[in-house]
Amino acid sequence: MKLKTGFFVSFEGGEGVGKSTLMPALAERLKEDGFEVVCSKEPGGTPVGVQLRQFMLDHAQTFSDIQTELLLFLADRLEHISSVLKPALAAGKIVLCDRYMDSTLAYQVGGRQLDSAQVTYLNELVTLRPQLTLLLDLPPEQGLKRAAKRSLPDRFEREALAFHQRVRAKYLSLFEAHPDRMRLIDVCGKQPEQVLEEAYICVKTRLEEVCHA
Amino acid sequence: MKLKTGFFVSFEGGEGVGKSTLMPALAERLKEDGFEVVCSKEPGGTPVGVQLRQFMLDHAQTFSDIQTELLLFLADRLEHISSVLKPALAAGKIVLCDRYMDSTLAYQVGGRQLDSAQVTYLNELVTLRPQLTLLLDLPPEQGLKRAAKRSLPDRFEREALAFHQRVRAKYLSLFEAHPDRMRLIDVCGKQPEQVLEEAYICVKTRLEEVCHA
Repeated sequence: MKLKTGFFVSFEGGEGVGKSTLMPALAERLKEDGFEVVCSKEPGGTPVGVQLRQFMLDHAQTFSDIQTELLLFLADRLEHISSVLKPALAAGKIVLCDRYMDSTLAYQVGGRQLDSAQVTYLNELVTLRPQLTLLLDLPPEQGLKRAAKRSLPDRFEREALAFHQRVRAKYLSLFEAHPDRMRLIDVCGKQPEQVLEEAYICVKTRLEEVCHA
Repeated sequence: MKLKTGFFVSFEGGEGVGKSTLMPALAERLKEDGFEVVCSKEPGGTPVGVQLRQFMLDHAQTFSDIQTELLLFLADRLEHISSVLKPALAAGKIVLCDRYMDSTLAYQVGGRQLDSAQVTYLNELVTLRPQLTLLLDLPPEQGLKRAAKRSLPDRFEREALAFHQRVRAKYLSLFEAHPDRMRLIDVCGKQPEQVLEEAYICVKTRLEEVCHA
């Protein structure tokens, strides 16, 4: 089943909220419904992006200017949009993307406390908007514990708890500001199956809204 | 001899104009006068920048969005400013930098024909301005021949002649627009010693102007 203009879903949330568990399961579910589904992620959804991702997540990496990281994330995004997202959407597919522009706001403005107007302006270079954004929410204390079980902490996971609390607060304010496209899923204490069920309903509901708009 | 606030000289020009021959010779000459001199370059003046430089100059690299390259250059510049340029200037040194913000305008707006207003805005993220910019000028046909003798062509050198002609035209228009800080040296048919002599006089003259301003 092809959609006329594709359907773009971004997945957002702090460390360890379960995006990478949810996404492939949701993709399977949607494929069973007959949709063509592409899963991707930022940073690192393109060959250029893979190299940039190594840069940015390497815990040994230090940037001397706080805006460097922001520019690298945006470079990764522009590549990702033109070589992965737009072609998939043009082919009528559902695109599930692990992190997108809300991550930039949550991590750079919330976490790193960069100037909001400047980040927002730079974000405007990005014109492709998701039709649905699923925000998985969990207190950072719990998310970081879950992330630590998975692997050694990357450069972001090593940030102090206060950083992650600011990230979460920014996500929640974005959710309030964009009720049209954002849905919040509280994952605290829930099994993956339950989170999947909620996410699936969000996607199907929004898909119907968008297709009948 | 230390300068109160340092002295920042950028070197600009198309491929093969002779910046990398001139700069170390000029640095020597200034050291003989008792100045402390630092030579650096963009892209690639920092550890992060070295990796970004490889990215950007690799002739096998292709970017699917025309703005990606611009963001990577800016990221490199921000790192370079905060970890190399500013500390050297604060220590009272003369800094000679192979390419700086005028390269962004000449190559991205002139060569690649990106939107001028957008590039100019992004360039404004960079607040450190050179006190002197030496623009080495040579018809691109000649410069490309000289560059080809030096090494295999990088991603920029492989561009068509028309690209390099647009780069040169943009440089010349920047020179007209910034008579305060830019000096043009016509290197066509000149020996390196003569170019060095002209560059040396430009630096000493501008240094006196700035120190007595």
